[in-house]
Amino acid sequence: MTRRDAKQEGRGEFARIADLAHAFAKASSRGQGRSLELGIGDDAAVIRPKKRERIVLTVDAQVENVHFRTDWLSYEDIAARAFLAAASDVYAMGAAPTFALSALTVPKGLAEKDFRALTKGTRWAADYVGATVIGGNLTSGSALSITTTVLGSAKKVLERKAKVGDHVYLVGRLGLARAGLLAHLAKKTKRVGLAPALDAFRRPNLHRRPLENDPRGAIDVSDGLAQDLGHVVRANDVAVELDEAALAIHARATKLDLAARALGVSILDLVLTGGEDYALLVFAKKPPSKKAVLIGHVVRGAGLYLRTNEKSRRRLSTTGFDHFAH
Amino acid sequence: MTRRDAKQEGRGEFARIADLAHAFAKASSRGQGRSLELGIGDDAAVIRPKKRERIVLTVDAQVENVHFRTDWLSYEDIAARAFLAAASDVYAMGAAPTFALSALTVPKGLAEKDFRALTKGTRWAADYVGATVIGGNLTSGSALSITTTVLGSAKKVLERKAKVGDHVYLVGRLGLARAGLLAHLAKKTKRVGLAPALDAFRRPNLHRRPLENDPRGAIDVSDGLAQDLGHVVRANDVAVELDEAALAIHARATKLDLAARALGVSILDLVLTGGEDYALLVFAKKPPSKKAVLIGHVVRGAGLYLRTNEKSRRRLSTTGFDHFAH
Repeated sequence: MTRRDAKQEGRGEFARIADLAHAFAKASSRGQGRSLELGIGDDAAVIRPKKRERIVLTVDAQVENVHFRTDWLSYEDIAARAFLAAASDVYAMGAAPTFALSALTVPKGLAEKDFRALTKGTRWAADYVGATVIGGNLTSGSALSITTTVLGSAKKVLERKAKVGDHVYLVGRLGLARAGLLAHLAKKTKRVGLAPALDAFRRPNLHRRPLENDPRGAIDVSDGLAQDLGHVVRANDVAVELDEAALAIHARATKLDLAARALGVSILDLVLTGGEDYALLVFAKKPPSKKAVLIGHVVRGAGLYLRTNEKSRRRLSTTGFDHFAH
Repeated sequence: MTRRDAKQEGRGEFARIADLAHAFAKASSRGQGRSLELGIGDDAAVIRPKKRERIVLTVDAQVENVHFRTDWLSYEDIAARAFLAAASDVYAMGAAPTFALSALTVPKGLAEKDFRALTKGTRWAADYVGATVIGGNLTSGSALSITTTVLGSAKKVLERKAKVGDHVYLVGRLGLARAGLLAHLAKKTKRVGLAPALDAFRRPNLHRRPLENDPRGAIDVSDGLAQDLGHVVRANDVAVELDEAALAIHARATKLDLAARALGVSILDLVLTGGEDYALLVFAKKPPSKKAVLIGHVVRGAGLYLRTNEKSRRRLSTTGFDHFAH
């Protein structure tokens, strides 16, 4: 944690940085000890990668009133969710999170208890994914913002590859977080049937186990199934056909149908455009996990299609998820 | 560059992300090719560290109206400066920058040319330090903010270590960037003698060559000489005596004396509290570079002292640099 921006906040910030360094230094002493040479507290952290290790790296930022509102989520949830959004990209590469750096921008006058809740949420999420926070930054700003860099370790990296003949497997849930967001926006959070959606929006479930059966490729759904599959079909010069019946079964199994009803929106719309559940889409011949659901196929052609219940084929737009701030 | 936050900005953002990915992908194909397996454009980047390589990692954020104002600096300078602030920590660890991830938060309605200038500044700074941008994030927000994660490679890491009997060497300049900041704040930028100060504030000079003669430790001056030496004396349970005459000679050599006169402030105040020049302080028996200036000594005791011209000793406060936003 650099001290660069501490002074502007008055002496209190020094105490905050010391608290952070202490909290994360304690965490550093566990777990990743083997490859961590120097944790939080100096100009930079130092790691010594293992032989033949591949390191994956990603960064993600979540900004107040763009990705969250402080009246919707607790500070602990806000921090945990921001961390998980970044970690999700590491899992999508077939890697396991190892280290993280957390850069916090906090509004002046943020209460001490809220600051502590942010720290607690970050630590919770780091523990949840098995990563150690080895660095960070603290500064003030007009809005709360959390930028998380996450490193992961992989033996074999999974790019966004897909080939004609591959199945499209879903690992995780779709649409629930979007339903949670819509519930907040429409102030309908008290309606019956929305608990799973609000939960998913609050703290997404990540699939944290290694994928099995040597998949060809993977991507995480952060912008919605349609948009994220759009990247895959374009990059691989293929088409994907989604199976509407399979998506409907999945929606019932996750109680997305109840959330959709409570909100008066279509299940399919939630499934196709709902980001932020951070499900994995895996392109493979065999299921990548016991929990994987077969939702479609990679076929010749271009674009994204829905194989409907009536066995007809409908082309889908590959523009997807909107955040709520416009 | 993830596409997570693109949609909220309308179709234009997709083009921006594609431009960024293209600009940095081209850069990826050069230089770090040996250890970079996958650059910008997937869920995460992938590197394959060299045998016995130590990787240092740091993150730094610069926020509009806290660290800069858009009427003081060009967008190109803002981006370059933010990148250099992060890279400085890597040099302070005795490492050379290798890779970077750049997370941008831009206000809605930022003009296309300003966005391009930000990209250009980031690329310039990455090239300047020899790093490749391998990932990033783009989101909107109420204020411009740039968070840069920089990785570096080191054979031997330099922590903030200092021992009684070590010399304190300065590599770089002190106080100039602070004088530039004060000139902007006081709207005195047109006064004679301020050009070096405004330049230093705009785009700090980093010492990019390996340090010689096996120094004991180092730290970069980001919060001011007094404050940053404060960390060192506390961490090492020693005192530091600075030599006022040496600091005065250095001030004349860098034309800080002219800037101080133009602003009507004291040279010593600029030198002791001026951050953001990103000079290195090196604790060593022998000069770490031909450009190193001997400015003090590590002695028994606690705290920071000034050996004045009259050979008396005065204790200094170790609180230093303020950003301008309060």
